[in-house]
Amino acid sequence: MQSDIDIARAATLKPIAQIGEHLSIPAEQLIPFGHDKAKLSQDCMDALADRPNGKLILVTAISPTPAGEGKTTTTVGLGDALNAIGKKASVCIREASLGPCFGVKGGAAGGGMAQVVPMEEMNLHFTGDFHAVTAAHNLLAAMVDNHIYWGNDLDIDVRRIKWRRVVDLNDRSLRQITTGLGGVANGFPSESGFDITVASEVMAILCLAENHKDLQRRLGDIIVGYRRDRTPVSCRDIGADGAMTVLLKQAILPNLVQTLENNPAFVHGGPFANIAHGCNSVLSTKAALKLSDYVVTEAGFGADLGAEKFFNIKCRKAGVAPDAAVIVATIRALKMNGGVAKADLGTPDEDAVLAGCANLGRHIENVKKFDVPVVVAINHFTSDTVEETAVVQRYVESMGCKAILCTHWADGSKGAVALAEAVVAMTEQEKPQFKLLYRDSMSFVTKIEIVAKEIYGAKGVLINQKIRQQLEQWEAEGYGELPVCMAKTQYSFSTDPTLLGAPSDFDVPVREVRLSAGAGFIVVICGEIMTMPGLPRKPAALSIHLNEKGDIEGLF
Amino acid sequence: MQSDIDIARAATLKPIAQIGEHLSIPAEQLIPFGHDKAKLSQDCMDALADRPNGKLILVTAISPTPAGEGKTTTTVGLGDALNAIGKKASVCIREASLGPCFGVKGGAAGGGMAQVVPMEEMNLHFTGDFHAVTAAHNLLAAMVDNHIYWGNDLDIDVRRIKWRRVVDLNDRSLRQITTGLGGVANGFPSESGFDITVASEVMAILCLAENHKDLQRRLGDIIVGYRRDRTPVSCRDIGADGAMTVLLKQAILPNLVQTLENNPAFVHGGPFANIAHGCNSVLSTKAALKLSDYVVTEAGFGADLGAEKFFNIKCRKAGVAPDAAVIVATIRALKMNGGVAKADLGTPDEDAVLAGCANLGRHIENVKKFDVPVVVAINHFTSDTVEETAVVQRYVESMGCKAILCTHWADGSKGAVALAEAVVAMTEQEKPQFKLLYRDSMSFVTKIEIVAKEIYGAKGVLINQKIRQQLEQWEAEGYGELPVCMAKTQYSFSTDPTLLGAPSDFDVPVREVRLSAGAGFIVVICGEIMTMPGLPRKPAALSIHLNEKGDIEGLF
Repeated sequence: MQSDIDIARAATLKPIAQIGEHLSIPAEQLIPFGHDKAKLSQDCMDALADRPNGKLILVTAISPTPAGEGKTTTTVGLGDALNAIGKKASVCIREASLGPCFGVKGGAAGGGMAQVVPMEEMNLHFTGDFHAVTAAHNLLAAMVDNHIYWGNDLDIDVRRIKWRRVVDLNDRSLRQITTGLGGVANGFPSESGFDITVASEVMAILCLAENHKDLQRRLGDIIVGYRRDRTPVSCRDIGADGAMTVLLKQAILPNLVQTLENNPAFVHGGPFANIAHGCNSVLSTKAALKLSDYVVTEAGFGADLGAEKFFNIKCRKAGVAPDAAVIVATIRALKMNGGVAKADLGTPDEDAVLAGCANLGRHIENVKKFDVPVVVAINHFTSDTVEETAVVQRYVESMGCKAILCTHWADGSKGAVALAEAVVAMTEQEKPQFKLLYRDSMSFVTKIEIVAKEIYGAKGVLINQKIRQQLEQWEAEGYGELPVCMAKTQYSFSTDPTLLGAPSDFDVPVREVRLSAGAGFIVVICGEIMTMPGLPRKPAALSIHLNEKGDIEGLF
Repeated sequence: MQSDIDIARAATLKPIAQIGEHLSIPAEQLIPFGHDKAKLSQDCMDALADRPNGKLILVTAISPTPAGEGKTTTTVGLGDALNAIGKKASVCIREASLGPCFGVKGGAAGGGMAQVVPMEEMNLHFTGDFHAVTAAHNLLAAMVDNHIYWGNDLDIDVRRIKWRRVVDLNDRSLRQITTGLGGVANGFPSESGFDITVASEVMAILCLAENHKDLQRRLGDIIVGYRRDRTPVSCRDIGADGAMTVLLKQAILPNLVQTLENNPAFVHGGPFANIAHGCNSVLSTKAALKLSDYVVTEAGFGADLGAEKFFNIKCRKAGVAPDAAVIVATIRALKMNGGVAKADLGTPDEDAVLAGCANLGRHIENVKKFDVPVVVAINHFTSDTVEETAVVQRYVESMGCKAILCTHWADGSKGAVALAEAVVAMTEQEKPQFKLLYRDSMSFVTKIEIVAKEIYGAKGVLINQKIRQQLEQWEAEGYGELPVCMAKTQYSFSTDPTLLGAPSDFDVPVREVRLSAGAGFIVVICGEIMTMPGLPRKPAALSIHLNEKGDIEGLF
C-alpha cells in the first residue's frame, strides 16, 4: 500500500496559475511561491468585494480518539467530490505547525487519495506565514522590555508582563525562563517563557482579521501587561502595532494550493484549538466564498470544541453563516467511544459501535441547536464490516439524519460523491436562519454555562469567586460583548479525558480565565492546557534527512 | 531630492523570469517568490557544473566611519556599468537582517541610482532564508536539551552547553537567560541566551557550504557542548544534522533579484562580519561566476577585516580566486580618518584628505599582498571639491594605482563606466597567481600574528597562556588546518576604535577564542563583540506602519 507521502509525490500538480485560472483569478493577481503555491494578492482581494458568496460547509467530527477520524481527509474528499459532480468547490484548511513535525511526525494535509499538496513545503516553511507571526510576536516582546529599559514611562510592573515569546518548535526548556540577566545593560530580570507559535494571540488575530486596518487595530488591542495599579498596558501603548502589521503584511493574504485532483485548496492560518478558536483564516474563507459555489472547511478537534467555536466565534465575528455541516465518524473511533481498547479495534463489535453512537448523537444534536443542517460521513476503514456500518446508519436515521459511507481515502472524489450529493441537496433547500448559541450581551458566566450545559451536557460550571470577580471586572472595562473561547480536553464532552461516549452528571470546573483582547475573546481554561509541547524520547527529527537523490525522508 | 525608497518604488522591475533569461536560465529552473524574486532551483545549480567561470571582482573599502563609504552602492554601480559597456555582469551581495530594521532603520541594498530591488521585501522576510536558519539553529538547541531531559546518554555537562539560541530581532533581554525552570517536566535549569540570527554558526555554514551534502557534514561538525571530561559533543552526536539540512534545503539555494537597471543581482546569506566571515554565500558566488562574465561582490567592513576574510577564508575554502579588487573611499570618510569631526565634513580640507589617505594606502598595500590587482573608486559626494579629489588621485597614483571618480549614486551605470573600464583592463591582463597570506599548516598563533602584523600593522599580538593552551588543544584535536576569523573593531586597524588613519606601534590583545568547527574556522576575539544588539530609546519600529494606500512607511 502506498504511503501518503508516496501518493503525494506521485501526484501530477498543475501550475498554480492554472488553479487560479479555474477560480477566474488572473495570473498577475497571484503572488507565486514556487510553481505550486501562491498567495492571493491584495488586488485580488480588493476585486472580490462585490461578488456573491458561495455556500459554506463545515466539516467537524465526533470526539477524537487515537483511532483517528479523518476530518481533513473528508474535507478534501468532499471538496473533490463536489467538483466531480460539477460544482465549483474549494477547500479551506489550516496550515501545519513546524514544531510538531520534528517531534512525532509531519501532519499530512488529508490522507490517501484525498490530500492537499505540495505536502513537504506545507509541513516546512510553506509561504512563511508562521515565521512572520513569530517575528511579529517577538518584536512586541522586545519592545515591551525595551520600553522598560529606557525608563518605563508607562510604569509597567515587570512582575505583571503577560506577553511571553514564541518559537515554532517543541522546546520544553523554554516554557519557563528568566530573562534580562547579566547586569544593567541587559535590562531588568523578569520571569517569562515561550509558547509555540500557533498558541500566539497574533496567530488568532491573523485568522480573525478582515483586512490590514482591522489587523492593526486588533494587534493594538493586545494587552501586554499591567501597571502596579492593575490598569492594562496595550500593544498600542507600546507602539508596536504598526510594525507588527508591516511584518504580517503578506502573511495575512490567503495561500492557494491544490488537492491531488487539482482542485483549489486554501491553506491559511493555524491557531490552537484550545486557547484559540482553531479555524483557518476568515480572509481565506471569505475569499473562497467569493470565488467558489461551495467552500468546504473544517474546525479543530470534535464538534463540541471545533464546531462550537467555529459557529460562536468565527461565524459570529466574521458575519458568515454555514449552510450545512458534516460530522465525520469512523467505525473504529465509535468503538473506542463505546469502550473498546485500541488494540481490539480489529474485532467486529456492533454493540460497541452502537454504544459509541451516543457520542455521535450528542454532536448531531449540538449542531442542530445552531439550526445548521447536518449529515454524517462514515469515513471507511478497510476493517469495517457492513453490519457495523449499518448500525451507525440506523442510529443516525433514527435521529432524522443521514449517514453516508465514504471511501475517498481509497478512491478520491468517487468515494465521496454520495456525500457531495447529500450536501448539495441539503443546501438547495431554503437556507435556515443560522442561530448563535448565546447573545453578545449575556454575561460571561451565562455564556460559559450555556456552552457547558447545551454543548457538553454538563450539570453546571464551577467558577470560584476570584475568577467571577475577574470576569465582572472585564465586563466593567467594556469587554463584556466578547465570546468565550473554551479550552478543555478534546477527548471527552467533560473535562475528564477518560470519560468517553456521552457522559452526563458532571460539572465543568473553570481553572483560569484569560483575556485575548486583540483576538476578541476570553479564554476559559478548564483543565491543564499545554502551550509549549516537548519533544519525545526519540523525536522524528532523528530520522529526518535528505536522501541521496535530495528528497526528504522521515518527515512523514 | 528623492530618497532611496522613492527611487526604488519608482523603478520599473522586470519579471524575474526575464532576468533569469538574460543569464540563460530557463524559467522552469527558477523558483519564483512573487514576480520579482526567485531562487535558482537545484536543477539549475546542477546544470552549471561544467561551465567556465567569469571573473570575480571584490569591492572592499577603507576603514568605515560614520561618514559612510558606499561599498554596496559601488558594487551595484560597478555591476550596472559593466553591463552598460557590454559585459554580462552580476552582483553578489548579502541579505539584510530583519532585527536591525526595527531598531535604527532598514538597510537599503545600495543607494541612489545604484540599488538592488525589491527593497521592502529584501528588508523584511525576503525568501525566508533567515527564518530557516533561525529554525534550524533552535531545533538543535531544543534537541540538545531534549537529549539531556531523556537521560543524557551522551553525558553532556549542562554547565558546558555552548549552543545558544537565536532570534532575528534586537532583544537585549534575551542575551543572558536561565532556561528549564518550573520543575521536572521542563528539564534542567541551565544558563543560556540568544544571539541575533546573523551571528549563528548555521548562517556561516549556509554561506560556506558547497551543496546539501557538505551542508549536512558541516552542521554535523558543530560542537554543541562538552562532557565533564571536557570532550566535545557534536550536532551529529545529537542527531540533528539531517533535520537541520531539511530545514535549510531551500534556504541554501541562491536568490536572484535585480538592480534598478534590471541587471541580475544575487542576494544570499548574511553572516556577521566579526565572529564570522561576512560574505554572501559561496553557492551564489559560484553560480554567478558560471552565469556571468563578471561577478562583482563585496565583503563586510573595511579591507582589513572584509577583504582579509574574503581572501583567507572564503576564497581559500571555496577554491575561488579574485581577479581584481576595488577599494571604495569617499572624501568625507578620508577626512574623518584624517582627524576631521563629522560636523566639520562640509568644509573643504585638502590636508585632512591627505592625512586620511594613509588609511587608504595601507588597505591598498594589504590587498597587493594577496597579489590581487587593485583600483580605488572615489564614491562622489556633492560636497567634494575638485582639489580634494585630486589629492586622492595623486596619492593613489604615487602607489602605482589608479583612483577613479565615480558618480553612480547620482547617475547610475553612467557614473561608473570609467571604473568598469579600469576593472576590465586590469582583468584582461594575465591573471596573477592569487596568494593566500598564510598556509593551512601554520600554527594558530602564527596565523594570528601574520594577520595582525601584515594587515593591521601591529607590533605583535598578546595571547595569554590559557588561550595558547586552548589553541594548542584544538591543534592536537585536528583542527589546526582551519583559518582564523578575526573579530575586532572595524573602525581602526588596531583594536582601539578611536585610532583612525594608519596607526602603528600597537599590539593586538586576544581576549577569547572560539571554535566554529562546522563553519570551519576559529574565531579570534580582540575586544568587545556584541552578538545580540538592543533597540534604541526610540526604535524605528515606533514609526513603521502601513499608510492608507497599504504602502510601508518608516522602514527606511
